Amino acid sequence: MVDFSGFYKKTRQERIDILSNARQISLESQEIIKTDTNLPETIAGKMVENHLGTFALPFSVLPDIVVDNMHYSVPMVTEEPSVVAAASLGAKIIAKSGGFITTVHNRLMIGQVALYDVADTSAACFSISQKKAELLEMANAAHPSILKRGGGAQDLTVEEKGEFLIVYLHVDVQEAMGANMLNNMLEAIKEPLEELSQGQSLMAILSNYATESLVTASCQVSISTLNIKQDLAKEIAQKISLASQLAQVDPYRATTHNKGIFNGIDAVLLATGNDWRATEAGSHAWACQKDHYRGLSTWTIEEDALVGSLTLPLPVATVGGSIGLNPKVQVVFDILGHPSSKELASIIASCGLSQNFAALRALVTTGIQQGHMKLHAKSLAMLAGATGNEIDIIATQLRQEKHSNLETAQNLLFNLRNKK
Amino acid sequence: MVDFSGFYKKTRQERIDILSNARQISLESQEIIKTDTNLPETIAGKMVENHLGTFALPFSVLPDIVVDNMHYSVPMVTEEPSVVAAASLGAKIIAKSGGFITTVHNRLMIGQVALYDVADTSAACFSISQKKAELLEMANAAHPSILKRGGGAQDLTVEEKGEFLIVYLHVDVQEAMGANMLNNMLEAIKEPLEELSQGQSLMAILSNYATESLVTASCQVSISTLNIKQDLAKEIAQKISLASQLAQVDPYRATTHNKGIFNGIDAVLLATGNDWRATEAGSHAWACQKDHYRGLSTWTIEEDALVGSLTLPLPVATVGGSIGLNPKVQVVFDILGHPSSKELASIIASCGLSQNFAALRALVTTGIQQGHMKLHAKSLAMLAGATGNEIDIIATQLRQEKHSNLETAQNLLFNLRNKK
Repeated sequence: MVDFSGFYKKTRQERIDILSNARQISLESQEIIKTDTNLPETIAGKMVENHLGTFALPFSVLPDIVVDNMHYSVPMVTEEPSVVAAASLGAKIIAKSGGFITTVHNRLMIGQVALYDVADTSAACFSISQKKAELLEMANAAHPSILKRGGGAQDLTVEEKGEFLIVYLHVDVQEAMGANMLNNMLEAIKEPLEELSQGQSLMAILSNYATESLVTASCQVSISTLNIKQDLAKEIAQKISLASQLAQVDPYRATTHNKGIFNGIDAVLLATGNDWRATEAGSHAWACQKDHYRGLSTWTIEEDALVGSLTLPLPVATVGGSIGLNPKVQVVFDILGHPSSKELASIIASCGLSQNFAALRALVTTGIQQGHMKLHAKSLAMLAGATGNEIDIIATQLRQEKHSNLETAQNLLFNLRNKK
Repeated sequence: MVDFSGFYKKTRQERIDILSNARQISLESQEIIKTDTNLPETIAGKMVENHLGTFALPFSVLPDIVVDNMHYSVPMVTEEPSVVAAASLGAKIIAKSGGFITTVHNRLMIGQVALYDVADTSAACFSISQKKAELLEMANAAHPSILKRGGGAQDLTVEEKGEFLIVYLHVDVQEAMGANMLNNMLEAIKEPLEELSQGQSLMAILSNYATESLVTASCQVSISTLNIKQDLAKEIAQKISLASQLAQVDPYRATTHNKGIFNGIDAVLLATGNDWRATEAGSHAWACQKDHYRGLSTWTIEEDALVGSLTLPLPVATVGGSIGLNPKVQVVFDILGHPSSKELASIIASCGLSQNFAALRALVTTGIQQGHMKLHAKSLAMLAGATGNEIDIIATQLRQEKHSNLETAQNLLFNLRNKK
């Protein structure tokens, strides 16, 4: 067990040394971090079109998070202050209660062939379902290597939506993100589906609404660990649970609640070379599967624990796309200990929940700690009717009073004016 | 007018030269691009916590997009191939019809103070609305500099949601993203609101659901410009319009439809130092304001034009946050011609719609062009019942037939087997 206490206070060089020891990082990776070697401009030019060079963001690390009883250091790429600090603090507090436990519910990608001008949809559904086995075989024949790796097209379903008859293909993509794989498979069954449905195909493409790549991260935080003062600890737990309810009823809060979760998630997606737009779109769509847009995570009090849970579609990859091209991404996988795509999804979901916990804790304790007292006193003075010089005078007096509330402010203002 | 034709085929050095001339880029900025100078590791360490260094992504440019009759070159940062090419192509085609026209509906940020344990919500609403002017004054006093810049808190509204009474503050943040400004203002009115409502404040924070920072980008593409063959041009337009409908009825398609839009948008947000998580969350929540998650853009046929429209919350900034710290971001603003935050929002929305147009066009024309014929023929052969060697034999025969459909494949297989 490596001691990461005070990690944030260390120098960059010290951090690299601690990390290198703790996670058995290769000498090559250490060298890349030390020299801050990045994606060469020439490789960037092979990844995208019209390239001018490269663009850098800060590269940081969450030193220690416990996920399914394993310790990980998680590289994060973000421009926003406080994100890495918050995720790290959340992970540290939650580690005292055993860390995060995750469930990867499944790891299938869904693609669709949208058909239109289908005269008889019932007949089309019947014809397609009759040939389901053959269609799956065709799909697999379009990308045979995935079968060797233990994956492949597993199911095919049909739904009528609006004027469209939509055929969904469900594919086990193993370690890949699977966009090309899915698109090839869908391309291969497109014409047969036109034949079977006697309709026209509008498009055949992967969906980023990855409802069959769901991951749940959860944690049971002992309420006693939330503050030394136990009444305050209980109040924090209750307020975090209230904050969770607020994100269920108000889309204005839900949006920012989820944005906070994605502060953590996107930072790891970027660092691992994954496509953050895909995960953002899929998860936010998932957030409004019920009547309105809601918070993705929930926090409830169960006996002596604050129980957090976050479920979202996380179709992340460890190979393919830009992952192999960026030397820093290779270092990231080295720091992470070369997880499988399922393990990576578990780590990322846990980082999201950790971020969420830290954000809610900060939000609800700012109130408890009675911060910004000076500002509050001024506001109260103004609310009481103070103007001009009176505001500062009343504010100063208010801060010396036991109860700095509106009534006190009004009394103070009354006294001040009657003295004149 | 600079000629950007064949820009994608130029060398990096040539691109930099063309761009420097076309957009009057400063010598300093030119030098930064040429040397590919990035965020120094030491500055990265001041932006975020636990920093190890920097992390680079490819830096590209969309050479020419027409927005509100102005020509712009738009820097993009993304790891995904085809994104810059698609956005550039979309912009080029749409420029033939006059480019994009935008409307910035408003530019207010919304923050909230969530109150609970409010015994009498009607009385609380009344008390708060009675003191609205004073509360707005308090909010502005917490961040007085914004008044000097012509902005400030403009309205305060109250809503009951679940067990909460929520006070929303509506603030004109001018060129800033406004998170700190809003949070200071909300902090300043939190205690007065507790007093007025006789309730408890749970949290006081900005919302990323920026429904009062809406931007609309639209375009009218002459259908005749979609293909040299006019019947094909009409078919492409009809299919893009169908694709737009599909994204309205099916969340599986809507997610990917919107993901494509954000391929364009996030690339510009990153390049301009803006917070992409904030915009992703706000826009996807906006996508499910109605009964279910829908496509953010629509495409309809009106007489001889394909009319595209994209409305979304885009609270982007040109100052603050990490914008001033990254030298590459400064170059980006130089290339863009130092737009205001409203102009930047217009440019970004147009890039999103351009990306969307290009993606839909590619998706629906892949089918029209009858690509991947070999794969299709194989699939048809298999669908007809061919196995083993038969598949390749039938597929080869099929591709020589006029109508390579299922019936033909079945006939060919019947003939093949009866010859044996």
